[in-house]
Amino acid sequence: MTGTVYLIGAGPGAPDLLTLRAARVLERADIVFHDALVHPETLALAVRAEKVETGKRSGRRSTAQKFINKRLIDAARKHDVVVRLKGGDPMLFGRVQEEIEALRAGHIPFQIVPGVTAASAAAAQIGVSLTRRGLSRHVTFVTPRAAPEEPANDWAASVLAADTAVIYMGAGLAQSIADTLIARGKPADTPVGLVEDASLPGSRVRYGMLRDLAPMAALCGAGPAVIILGDVLRETMQQDAVESLVFARLPHRARA
Amino acid sequence: MTGTVYLIGAGPGAPDLLTLRAARVLERADIVFHDALVHPETLALAVRAEKVETGKRSGRRSTAQKFINKRLIDAARKHDVVVRLKGGDPMLFGRVQEEIEALRAGHIPFQIVPGVTAASAAAAQIGVSLTRRGLSRHVTFVTPRAAPEEPANDWAASVLAADTAVIYMGAGLAQSIADTLIARGKPADTPVGLVEDASLPGSRVRYGMLRDLAPMAALCGAGPAVIILGDVLRETMQQDAVESLVFARLPHRARA
Repeated sequence: MTGTVYLIGAGPGAPDLLTLRAARVLERADIVFHDALVHPETLALAVRAEKVETGKRSGRRSTAQKFINKRLIDAARKHDVVVRLKGGDPMLFGRVQEEIEALRAGHIPFQIVPGVTAASAAAAQIGVSLTRRGLSRHVTFVTPRAAPEEPANDWAASVLAADTAVIYMGAGLAQSIADTLIARGKPADTPVGLVEDASLPGSRVRYGMLRDLAPMAALCGAGPAVIILGDVLRETMQQDAVESLVFARLPHRARA
Repeated sequence: MTGTVYLIGAGPGAPDLLTLRAARVLERADIVFHDALVHPETLALAVRAEKVETGKRSGRRSTAQKFINKRLIDAARKHDVVVRLKGGDPMLFGRVQEEIEALRAGHIPFQIVPGVTAASAAAAQIGVSLTRRGLSRHVTFVTPRAAPEEPANDWAASVLAADTAVIYMGAGLAQSIADTLIARGKPADTPVGLVEDASLPGSRVRYGMLRDLAPMAALCGAGPAVIILGDVLRETMQQDAVESLVFARLPHRARA
């Protein structure tokens, strides 16, 4: 008799941006393996569960991943409801495919519960639709990050071809992103927005042009950030007092 | 004294893929303006609210949009909690920017509640991450649909530049999509998956190659469908009995 592993997206940060389905599974969970960034209020929904933090440190990623895969399979052989809880949506930059393949290979039943991705939360927070009639019919989600052993990742081509782009895990590479895109023909005055800790009360939003991306990113703290590029931002950036508007729209909810 | 308008993403279809925040706002809502495709169980959460369906018919879209904008503003002058409920995530193909601009112009307070987009739900359902280490570092979300008055929409360039592509509102244009992409150099044997009514019990999943897209789409019913293109699908497609696996992972929940 084997339990089920639920690969669950915890959403972008705010605990009430979890789905109802995820909340119900957490309430029934026997054990939860979670990323470091999952909100404490989200974890607290798993009233019965043992909680195990599975932070992966860079440099040891593949070893750590194999260990997590094994722990998930072992847990499913002992428990009915095993949860793997990841920030955002598991299918977008969630590095979940290795876990899926391991569960399939181990004949462990699993379900994936999608979540709200950071791009959606950031766009909602600043009030700028990523697609827009007449202006943006496509949006690309990219990351410039790649492990050394990976094949070439032409993230820049995807940004250049898209009306709107959202760059995940890019704040630490801001100078290289701006240099690469401008060298390949993206106008240096392309509007950019940088949203740190989207959906959380401490969130910070900064606007500028592509050539300003590095100084904007230098102001970021340790929280996850997404970079939005494109003309969809232009009107919002030009409004007066845009930051105060943005912060007024954040839910008034203390972070635990 | 003016109420607040909440622009809420209802998620991809299944009522339990709504966020906790959306559910709590619906419970307090005085009036809900909703798209035709929102699930009856989701609407039922708005126990106190008057419900108004705001279906837009093609050809009369701009007139209808102005009428909806006006109704939202009028409602906010009468009620505390006004909800505009849209399928999926409002910031991705939700055509929500005109409503946002109208609310800003009318000085109506508003909040946007992000939702799970159809691409995330479809990927979760078939167990295929849209990004994948070493294989897909970017994913584009596009629609080939455009109103006649819109500027040229080079959706195909975005698909060609991306490792993975998700095409929204494309099933009715499948032949033209396949012809365009193949003519511009996308291999005719690129794996494609077509997911209709993602996350709902009646969902159908079909796999094939890009050259088969039109006959695959011809089997679709009236439900919303997303088309996923890319090598991330290859292994899943090659597994035996993939459809039965997919359906086994759907939540067992009757559609009201």
